[in-house]
Amino acid sequence: MSQKPLSMQEVIRRLHEFWAAHGCLIWQPYSEKVGAGTMNPATVLRVLGPEPWSVAYVEPSFRADDGRYAENPNRMQMHHQYQVILKPDPGNPQELYLASLEAIGLDRTRHDIRFVEDNWESPALGAWGLGWEVWLDGQEITQFTYFQQAGSLTLDPVSVEITYGLDRIVMYLQNRSQVWDIDVDGQHTFAEIYRDPEIEHCVYNFELADVERLKQLYEIYRAEADACIRRGLVVPAHDFVLRQSHTFNLLDARGAIGVTERAKFFAAMRNQARSVSELYVKQRASAGFPWLPPTPETVDTLAPAAPTPAPETAKAVAQSFLLEIGSEELPPQDVTDGIAQIEANLARLLGEYQLRYTTLRVTGTTRRLVAYVTELAPTQANETVEKRGPALDRAYDSAGKPTKAAEGFARGAGIDVSALEVRDNYVYAVKHVTGQPTPAVLPELCTKLLDSLRWGKTMRWNTSNTGYPRPLRWLVALLGDQVVPFAWAGINSDRQSRGPRFADAAANLPAGSFTTFAVETADTYFAAIAQQGVIVDRAERQQRIVEQVQQIAAAVGGATPDDPGLLEEVTDLVESPQALLGTFEAKYLDLPIPVLIGVMKKHQRYFPLVRDGQLLAHFITIANAQNLAHPDVVVTGNEGVIRARYADAAYFYRQDTSRPLDSYTPRLATLTFHERLGSMLDKVERLKLLAPQIAQLLHATAEQHTDVSRAAALAKSDLVTSMVVEMTSLQGIIGEIYARKNGETAAVAQAIREHYLPRAAGDANPVTIPGLALSLADKLDSLAGLFAVGAIPTGSADPFGLRRAALGVVNNLLASQTDFSIRQGLTLAAAQQTVPVTDAAMGETLAFIARRLQGVLTELGYPHDVIDAVLAMHGDNPYAAQRAADLLQTMVAQPWWSDTFTAYARCARITRNLDTPLTLNPDAYVEEVEHALHQAYLTASQGVDATGLGETLHRLQAPISAFFERVLVNADDETVRKARLALVQHIAQLPATVADLSKLQGF
Amino acid sequence: MSQKPLSMQEVIRRLHEFWAAHGCLIWQPYSEKVGAGTMNPATVLRVLGPEPWSVAYVEPSFRADDGRYAENPNRMQMHHQYQVILKPDPGNPQELYLASLEAIGLDRTRHDIRFVEDNWESPALGAWGLGWEVWLDGQEITQFTYFQQAGSLTLDPVSVEITYGLDRIVMYLQNRSQVWDIDVDGQHTFAEIYRDPEIEHCVYNFELADVERLKQLYEIYRAEADACIRRGLVVPAHDFVLRQSHTFNLLDARGAIGVTERAKFFAAMRNQARSVSELYVKQRASAGFPWLPPTPETVDTLAPAAPTPAPETAKAVAQSFLLEIGSEELPPQDVTDGIAQIEANLARLLGEYQLRYTTLRVTGTTRRLVAYVTELAPTQANETVEKRGPALDRAYDSAGKPTKAAEGFARGAGIDVSALEVRDNYVYAVKHVTGQPTPAVLPELCTKLLDSLRWGKTMRWNTSNTGYPRPLRWLVALLGDQVVPFAWAGINSDRQSRGPRFADAAANLPAGSFTTFAVETADTYFAAIAQQGVIVDRAERQQRIVEQVQQIAAAVGGATPDDPGLLEEVTDLVESPQALLGTFEAKYLDLPIPVLIGVMKKHQRYFPLVRDGQLLAHFITIANAQNLAHPDVVVTGNEGVIRARYADAAYFYRQDTSRPLDSYTPRLATLTFHERLGSMLDKVERLKLLAPQIAQLLHATAEQHTDVSRAAALAKSDLVTSMVVEMTSLQGIIGEIYARKNGETAAVAQAIREHYLPRAAGDANPVTIPGLALSLADKLDSLAGLFAVGAIPTGSADPFGLRRAALGVVNNLLASQTDFSIRQGLTLAAAQQTVPVTDAAMGETLAFIARRLQGVLTELGYPHDVIDAVLAMHGDNPYAAQRAADLLQTMVAQPWWSDTFTAYARCARITRNLDTPLTLNPDAYVEEVEHALHQAYLTASQGVDATGLGETLHRLQAPISAFFERVLVNADDETVRKARLALVQHIAQLPATVADLSKLQGF
Repeated sequence: MSQKPLSMQEVIRRLHEFWAAHGCLIWQPYSEKVGAGTMNPATVLRVLGPEPWSVAYVEPSFRADDGRYAENPNRMQMHHQYQVILKPDPGNPQELYLASLEAIGLDRTRHDIRFVEDNWESPALGAWGLGWEVWLDGQEITQFTYFQQAGSLTLDPVSVEITYGLDRIVMYLQNRSQVWDIDVDGQHTFAEIYRDPEIEHCVYNFELADVERLKQLYEIYRAEADACIRRGLVVPAHDFVLRQSHTFNLLDARGAIGVTERAKFFAAMRNQARSVSELYVKQRASAGFPWLPPTPETVDTLAPAAPTPAPETAKAVAQSFLLEIGSEELPPQDVTDGIAQIEANLARLLGEYQLRYTTLRVTGTTRRLVAYVTELAPTQANETVEKRGPALDRAYDSAGKPTKAAEGFARGAGIDVSALEVRDNYVYAVKHVTGQPTPAVLPELCTKLLDSLRWGKTMRWNTSNTGYPRPLRWLVALLGDQVVPFAWAGINSDRQSRGPRFADAAANLPAGSFTTFAVETADTYFAAIAQQGVIVDRAERQQRIVEQVQQIAAAVGGATPDDPGLLEEVTDLVESPQALLGTFEAKYLDLPIPVLIGVMKKHQRYFPLVRDGQLLAHFITIANAQNLAHPDVVVTGNEGVIRARYADAAYFYRQDTSRPLDSYTPRLATLTFHERLGSMLDKVERLKLLAPQIAQLLHATAEQHTDVSRAAALAKSDLVTSMVVEMTSLQGIIGEIYARKNGETAAVAQAIREHYLPRAAGDANPVTIPGLALSLADKLDSLAGLFAVGAIPTGSADPFGLRRAALGVVNNLLASQTDFSIRQGLTLAAAQQTVPVTDAAMGETLAFIARRLQGVLTELGYPHDVIDAVLAMHGDNPYAAQRAADLLQTMVAQPWWSDTFTAYARCARITRNLDTPLTLNPDAYVEEVEHALHQAYLTASQGVDATGLGETLHRLQAPISAFFERVLVNADDETVRKARLALVQHIAQLPATVADLSKLQGF
Repeated sequence: MSQKPLSMQEVIRRLHEFWAAHGCLIWQPYSEKVGAGTMNPATVLRVLGPEPWSVAYVEPSFRADDGRYAENPNRMQMHHQYQVILKPDPGNPQELYLASLEAIGLDRTRHDIRFVEDNWESPALGAWGLGWEVWLDGQEITQFTYFQQAGSLTLDPVSVEITYGLDRIVMYLQNRSQVWDIDVDGQHTFAEIYRDPEIEHCVYNFELADVERLKQLYEIYRAEADACIRRGLVVPAHDFVLRQSHTFNLLDARGAIGVTERAKFFAAMRNQARSVSELYVKQRASAGFPWLPPTPETVDTLAPAAPTPAPETAKAVAQSFLLEIGSEELPPQDVTDGIAQIEANLARLLGEYQLRYTTLRVTGTTRRLVAYVTELAPTQANETVEKRGPALDRAYDSAGKPTKAAEGFARGAGIDVSALEVRDNYVYAVKHVTGQPTPAVLPELCTKLLDSLRWGKTMRWNTSNTGYPRPLRWLVALLGDQVVPFAWAGINSDRQSRGPRFADAAANLPAGSFTTFAVETADTYFAAIAQQGVIVDRAERQQRIVEQVQQIAAAVGGATPDDPGLLEEVTDLVESPQALLGTFEAKYLDLPIPVLIGVMKKHQRYFPLVRDGQLLAHFITIANAQNLAHPDVVVTGNEGVIRARYADAAYFYRQDTSRPLDSYTPRLATLTFHERLGSMLDKVERLKLLAPQIAQLLHATAEQHTDVSRAAALAKSDLVTSMVVEMTSLQGIIGEIYARKNGETAAVAQAIREHYLPRAAGDANPVTIPGLALSLADKLDSLAGLFAVGAIPTGSADPFGLRRAALGVVNNLLASQTDFSIRQGLTLAAAQQTVPVTDAAMGETLAFIARRLQGVLTELGYPHDVIDAVLAMHGDNPYAAQRAADLLQTMVAQPWWSDTFTAYARCARITRNLDTPLTLNPDAYVEEVEHALHQAYLTASQGVDATGLGETLHRLQAPISAFFERVLVNADDETVRKARLALVQHIAQLPATVADLSKLQGF
């Protein structure tokens, strides 16, 4: 940054020039208030349909919620986007984008630029795409998305959408710490031009906009949009959808939108957006898609070229095989998923293909997944395939001639009928398959390997319309020194690999280009990629991170808290890690630590540093770089980012804590919980009654009882604080912090936090009685109410998170080892509802929770039959069910169990169809064994408790067996018969308090 | 245009580059639908207050009314403006602008570029300015305005606003005949990008937009704007004003706005716009106007430099004096006004200054007003100033000593008391003033001359805040070969004049420069300016136009209809005329001729061509050029313009005539005439009753009666046809044409047109009875109704044109020589009103019309006393009044009149205070003269008619004189007295049917 940095308008001019030179039409901002350049018809409509379209433009974007009265360094209700659409994908959009940064004066060799997974979705527009945030020294400067769907229509071809955060980029280029200091035109600062309107819009959006009038506006816009849609007017309809969207955002900023309302608004807008999109496509179609190139040969260019045939003569020696799947930056999760899958699937395929090898190593980075097989056999192993045919007497007639059946079988097996072999009274078709040379089968194997991979989310990017997590850009496949020719997703395999991005940056290439290197042989791959600066081995990369982080932490006398998730993620964000220490203003340490750490990790993937339990005013970031020439530049950049983030947090914190937590409670009335179940405030009113009742069931002390009442009253209040509106993940955590700050007791504060637990699988559970009581109350209230009004999860749709609530109930009770009747709890919760809760609904709810319990126990490893057996008895008491399961599991593992169970089962089976319980009648016994069994039963019935069931039954085994050997239960004499049945029935009932043993295997 | 023309986006890029290089901030289009770039806050707010501001941006501008469903070559509901604001005026904005045209590839030497007066006003924004349309080969490509007021606030400094019609300019640069063929980006045509949305918006705007919902929107926006204003939020308030404005435009396009409503809407928006503007200025003021330069020295730079002192020794010989007032293009009317005023005022000033000269010649062009005085005396003539003082007896006391009165007089006259001269019993102060050298007084004289000029409209442009019709840019003032040093409007006089614009174009100058030439002496000016190519003599210029036009017309066998107004205007649009013949498609000759000619003259100042009463498919335009190198280019350009205009007219004509005229009538219900008097349809209903009644009074035949009924029913129907909505000046004319086309009788059709007559002073009057009847009915209805509801013209405000209506009534009656009682007509009109018409209102209305009659008669040259005399009798019958005035005028011009009138006046004066008419009583006469006069009276009373009044009175002169010499009228005897008074009273009453002679001079 030695030259004078460009003014903002000069940056725009250069971007226009750059993208115009790359075929973009230069467009204008839209004549409506939009939240993003995406909403400009030049994007949201033009990406639809098959026609090519490339465009670039500035878009002042209005997002009411982001307003900070101009008090934040880079967050405003109006920011400038620079929007680029490339349709179809030119194949090198990332490289073009990076070149555009150079065009506006950014020296990439001095900076850390990363593509960090970020998927984009607009529920209101029915649009989504996969891509990244682009980070420049930690600052999110661009959203880069492969647009998959818009207006609820699947896009074909896919468009590349590049959305520059213009203000932030310019701020950075000009080395300013806040956008307000940007030089706009060589004469004016950003503040001079934009500050007053920014503040005014904030005042309007947050304080002044009239909710009633906004709602009227919304309705009018909706009606006009409908009219336009009916008339088939694309753009006028779109304008009214945009106006609805902007009005919705204002209503939201005014806090006037509840959860259900939000969903309804979105659904309505999405429907209209779809109609508009369909109209647009129809309009283009009826014009014959005039922009389509004259011949559809573009499709062919991406079809796999015929793979060059494998060399005629395969080498006779074992060689290494190397496969590198090169792509744009994969999401970290996909790197680990990919490695694991390739490891498993490649091993399986090599087996299936009868290809022997010595070792298989799979590893990778965010840009490449690599499989390396050593000593792969030169040919498949020979194989004998045998298939049994018809029985001998059906295969040959009496004359010994093959029957039609035998002929058919032989034909099906691909051999002559005369070749059938006879053995064990059957005919057999036996084929000896000679192994093919490895080069001949590897292409197919590679294709199958890639076909076999399954991902969390895939996308399409070219006309092959193949799915992969991010665009696949190159394939290196080498057997020894020979390319294994195959094609997948329109890419032909080759020996050309690509260098890391920092190598591209250093290489000073023409726009759109990248560095490549040829891999000579499979065995030299690892040396070659290391030469490029990539640490391709994942474990090694991770180890380097750990070492560097520890080293830096030690240097400032601190340590990083253990955080495997973060480490895993960071490992897959870089191809070569370089840890850097950053510092932030100590004043921000006054903010709550969860906020500080949350911001670092969630937004920036920084490692926090602690010393003696205190957070330090430092962070560690991992750059993607071999050897940064100017680490200070990157550090300064990252520090600027965290400064802005903390400034934002401090703003919220100051604003929120200016008044007590309970003063927020009334505003919960504006948050709809469910239209028939009332607002969040209504829910709180119910919890204030229900939670103490639940506490009672948990045997709470008087003090705990008081605490839970108070905690219930405050439980949801943080939902309307700015901090939680901004970072929803901090709900409860902020509640606790604010409650403490307001002088609530520690127990009350903790219960507020705990009542959300567990927030996800593996999360902590409440450890206090008030916390547990409130957590159960909250979840049971949701379950009872929402089931009563029919808001039941279906398929993958669970808008109210009822599966999570039910799981939470189960897990909390298990974790706290608490006996609790969910039925009883639900009944209390039902009593608080203002809607009728039918018995049927109650039954459904209980069954729903029991299914979660069933799942939990399954995951804990209990056998299915054991689980079924205990659920039959303890479906509404998870902890009791678990204890019973433990018992049964031990029991069925005993060596004597099989016999004991057989004996018991005779009793249970012979009586299970009896309608009524019979009375013991020892006077009617005829045989001694009857008296003996009776005596054994009496002893057993006293000894049965949860832990002693097995032993008890075991002791009964012999008397039962003796009994059945000697007597016929169904005697002719009715009195005798009834007496015997009564005795056996009583024995069958012995395990009833523990489990229904008839569900056990072997019954 | 030999190189490849630039794409539209390249044109924008170059304009950005050009204006950025000249200090402009490059701004973005606004995030609201605006009608023009002016409404972007970057203009309408930033032009307010004292701070400098220069900005340039593209603005897609939406004007619903201009929508043509993409069927017009260059008229669309959305067009692109390129907007530039320069604040303050840099002194050479026109030259900068012209350079910007070169920057986008326009070779000015090949084109005719003219600045044609066009003043701009936005009633809704409370904004106005003076300036021009810039014509490129006849095409209006830019609006160039010196912004004088915005948000109802006076601008200081004034801003220069340059609004390029981007689409048209690009169309022209690319040599396309319609915008739809423009190359936007090298890949797409304008049609491909903009056509579908254009058509859709037209459908929405004209057919679909829901009027009720739009009205609700408008109200909501208004309420939100008010709330924002109360809270002091500038930009949010402005946004809501813009939304109101756009909504208003849509309502208008839907035909839902009546005249009164329009005014109310405008007033409301204007009020809000003013509030917003005031808030903005307050906001900037409270920030201390941070963009003001540190010291206010800019003011000084424009203050007149101290004129260099006149040379010590004036030349002793008479020399010529030359004054050239150079400015940006003056409106044609100001050229003629300026020449006339300078001629008169300079002559007067030379007289006042005692400066003798031989000839004074004043002439000029649109860019310079020139005064040339020959043989101006080297010094002022010596002068003796004499002043009469007190009478002798008051000037000296008895001792002959000067009194205080004499001393005071002498002091006041600036001489010693001893120097008083005595004459005619008075004292005199006599001063002998020696003339100053001419160079010493000429500067002051020049300043006074410029101060003395009065203009229709003036503007301010620099910190001198002086008013002139357009910015004054240079002053040449030479006495012989010496500069006459003075300063006016911040400009110092000099000998540097400027060449014409076509010379600038040829000179290839740096941006912002212009050609200059030094004027050596006053006498060489005319040769020097001729050398530059300017035909400075207005008469000569006009003669050249006439010759060229005739020559070209003759060449195509046609002639141009006489049109002095057009010729006058064109003479002052160019500095050097070059007539060019253009051709348009013959198919347009099917359009009504008034439309064709109207378009040519109103929009283009073309001379139409006719042959044998038929219009030819040609036109003649007058370029401003010395000798065009490529007249074909200019002709082609002009042909493109007229093609688009006629396409538009054809579109309207086709649309309008697709259904009969009377089918438009019901839609008149949507046009409000006045809120209390109902719609235009209500007015038509009244006219259907009133017009036949008026016809009755005009003694119409039965057939005429039928015609007037039908004409009344159709009179206003053309107001809602597209053609009239577009060209209001064609109202009635279009009605006639459409009526004929629909098979109405010629008389009905003609009456429809005639009822609007006269449309302005000097216009034709109705020549048919139905036309006259309908015209009177229409005007009397307006007058009766509007006076009744108090909508009476005040000051210069006459929104309903009542002065014109009253004048029309008067002129129509005079022109048609029709006797008609306006009182009677008004009474009939009043009877049709649905509001009460009081006697007072009726009286006011009649007096109002009588004042117009008085004015008309005054203009016709009748003496005031004559007019007063006849109006007293015939105020409600103009034709009768005029006849009486003719009579009186002849009468008072007779040599005997004075004596006759003296005699008559004695009779009138002596009896004018009598309350009651007396009865003649000859029996009571005493003297012979009484009998003689009685006899003379009896004779006269039979002879009195309108034409014989004078003679009659003359014959009575002698008997009256004799009577008064002999008798005392007021005799003691009451009977005698009454008889004498009765006789005299009867004589005094003789002229009563003609006039009230007591109003005549000399009474």
